[in-house]
Amino acid sequence: MLLKSRVKYIQSLGQKKFRDQEGVFVAEGPKLINELLHAENVDLVWLFAIKEWIDHNQRLAGKLSDSKVYQIDEAELKRVSYMSTPNQVLGIFRRPVFIPIGLSHEVSLVLDGIQDPGNLGTIVRTADWFGIKRVICSFDCADVYNPKTIQATMGSICRVLVTYADLKMTLIDLAGLPVFGAVLDGKNLMELDKIKEGLILIGNESKGIRNELIEQIQYQITIPRQGKAESLNAAVATGIILSHLL
Amino acid sequence: MLLKSRVKYIQSLGQKKFRDQEGVFVAEGPKLINELLHAENVDLVWLFAIKEWIDHNQRLAGKLSDSKVYQIDEAELKRVSYMSTPNQVLGIFRRPVFIPIGLSHEVSLVLDGIQDPGNLGTIVRTADWFGIKRVICSFDCADVYNPKTIQATMGSICRVLVTYADLKMTLIDLAGLPVFGAVLDGKNLMELDKIKEGLILIGNESKGIRNELIEQIQYQITIPRQGKAESLNAAVATGIILSHLL
Repeated sequence: MLLKSRVKYIQSLGQKKFRDQEGVFVAEGPKLINELLHAENVDLVWLFAIKEWIDHNQRLAGKLSDSKVYQIDEAELKRVSYMSTPNQVLGIFRRPVFIPIGLSHEVSLVLDGIQDPGNLGTIVRTADWFGIKRVICSFDCADVYNPKTIQATMGSICRVLVTYADLKMTLIDLAGLPVFGAVLDGKNLMELDKIKEGLILIGNESKGIRNELIEQIQYQITIPRQGKAESLNAAVATGIILSHLL
Repeated sequence: MLLKSRVKYIQSLGQKKFRDQEGVFVAEGPKLINELLHAENVDLVWLFAIKEWIDHNQRLAGKLSDSKVYQIDEAELKRVSYMSTPNQVLGIFRRPVFIPIGLSHEVSLVLDGIQDPGNLGTIVRTADWFGIKRVICSFDCADVYNPKTIQATMGSICRVLVTYADLKMTLIDLAGLPVFGAVLDGKNLMELDKIKEGLILIGNESKGIRNELIEQIQYQITIPRQGKAESLNAAVATGIILSHLL
């Protein structure tokens, strides 16, 4: 049985304030939970699973402390789940711990005002695919620990360090690194050489990169358009840019 | 005031059965509505807007028949909206009409079991960016007229013809066209030449392309991975593939 106080606690984690206070995040579904339970830099707080998941994951569940794993029924899962279709298991984890890594000799992503939690998660997942280890977000980006973002990262949250910063200050501090930015009338992405170091700046879904940051870009790049769509989804654009530059 | 029967009607369009029966779809938000009102192949049925939208779009609203435009308040919009944050205006439109176009001398997309409505919409938008005019979906793909899909297409729904078909039969019928398919262990996408004709097959978000279709692929392609993410989002993968092949 799921205690009322636990239900309330899980529901409170839908709010950034409480997530930050507790230093945790919520993840759901067998695939993601399995990956997080195996990650070395993420600790489990509590796991809530229906019988089906526990039966199928006896070895894994057996390794976890009894005080951390709770069997619940589908109705209870539905009450605490953040997914429209709850999927067997929900876990609360401490936020990943990373060994500090520098930005030089690396390519990192810089996100300016990515508002949609799902987009942010998909961008982190895409960065991970292309071997990027650092994503720096403006303070008005979505919260990377939003349950929707966590789901969209598909586990990349424990491999990519996502931090929040004043981007103008960050770009000034890192003035030695080349800065690439996706704009509407820049140089054709297809004509650029691969890069080994630098910052790739991606702008807000509808407004693009804010003016005060545009000035800091050394290489303005554009994905050439052949059809008539007005724009590309921010995560799709990021994927295309990374696939050509890396 | 919004009549109870209208509220019920709009809410019923959340179900595919009723959408199909009526031959309509729901779209929301000033940007998308504006684009659809200007599209030549889409007809408006009804428009429901708050005062703010009507005041800002007097010329546009003035061109529409009075019997088609209803001013409602924010509470009423919230009741009928399919968005978590309703945005000024909701329209019901007849489905777009297209001049039939052939598949030869064109590159078209073929989607096998894309389940997520948002992913499907983003794929259609991405196809439009790269000038693709046809998307053929398996019957188990999400419905392209799902409100979430429509929002994610960002208007590309009136420029890209999306149809549903038995993909195995379709690929047999179109045997003269080269078929490219995204798989996990195919040829490096970066090493392929640009194409001018053919079908590009994209598989389900977690299961990929089903076996009976794999056999029909002449060019198995893979997006090379440098990091550790297990997979890419289907829309991101589509964008990357199109940006390299077109």
